Amino acid sequence: MKVRFVADRLKIPYRWIDVSVLAVETRNPEFLAMNPAGQVPVVMLADGRPLAQSNAIMLHLAEGSALIPADAYERALMHQWLFWEQYSHETAIAVRRFQKTYLKMPESEIDPSLKLKGERALALMDRHLINRSHFVADHLTLADIALVAYTRWADEAGFDLKDWPGVHKWVTRVETELELEAST
Amino acid sequence: MKVRFVADRLKIPYRWIDVSVLAVETRNPEFLAMNPAGQVPVVMLADGRPLAQSNAIMLHLAEGSALIPADAYERALMHQWLFWEQYSHETAIAVRRFQKTYLKMPESEIDPSLKLKGERALALMDRHLINRSHFVADHLTLADIALVAYTRWADEAGFDLKDWPGVHKWVTRVETELELEAST
Repeated sequence: MKVRFVADRLKIPYRWIDVSVLAVETRNPEFLAMNPAGQVPVVMLADGRPLAQSNAIMLHLAEGSALIPADAYERALMHQWLFWEQYSHETAIAVRRFQKTYLKMPESEIDPSLKLKGERALALMDRHLINRSHFVADHLTLADIALVAYTRWADEAGFDLKDWPGVHKWVTRVETELELEAST
Repeated sequence: MKVRFVADRLKIPYRWIDVSVLAVETRNPEFLAMNPAGQVPVVMLADGRPLAQSNAIMLHLAEGSALIPADAYERALMHQWLFWEQYSHETAIAVRRFQKTYLKMPESEIDPSLKLKGERALALMDRHLINRSHFVADHLTLADIALVAYTRWADEAGFDLKDWPGVHKWVTRVETELELEAST
């Protein structure tokens, strides 16, 4: 969804192809030819060249736009949040959501450390958003888009955003800016 | 070490301060003020502003240098490998190394999926390096530096690089370019 949010925001045309991870379509030879890592998302650029990793795709599509700060330090902080999202956020909140909502695993079978890790991530975001409208600079950047993608569905991962009111308010703000339907 | 490799390569002066994760120094208030995520590494830039996440720091230090390809697509592929490293490589190889070498956990206590994940990562790298001297373009970039940092100590994580000869050759090449002592 991150990639879609950026393409829509920047009015970049695309054709969207659903690929089912559950149906193991990401292990088909055709898919592996595009991305040997077998991970979604992957884009085929206009010239037919593939690119994988959601955050790398966003950076490529958004190059030269206001979604990437012009200031070098603000840009560095944006990168910092993109890597943090992949390491400390997605690995807890998106993984728990996948296990609960898609694999329908009962709570007792889910690694309990994921809950703790997700709560730590949301608490850190909540503290960061005190007196801030966005994660970096004072406007929407790729850092917000990367982080909002799974945060807005945190309830499906078993987290109640009412416990982190700063995050909750920011989700609503970013959803409005991206013209998304409200998730909560 | 990634950050150090980049600073040394670009002759950027720095003062190095060891912080012990085992001694929980990353949970001190002083450290958390620099990086609320409590993760190493973190740099204090010349103007006193902090920056965390190894790959974000590398991108900042290397801006405008040959370590970042000038071509937009090659730069996008470099970003792709940086995110893949954090998601699919560090989380297996560096984590296993930490558990085996630093925490001295016996093999029976280590999550067996880490071994499989690490082998998959090394196999993917090995295939990518067929007919390639470096991960992106035909010269050293941040993708190589990010990936070599833990790959060169893969034996301490319980992986024998002789099983992935392309990776082994590439490690030696990058170590030579970075003027590092040979790890194998």
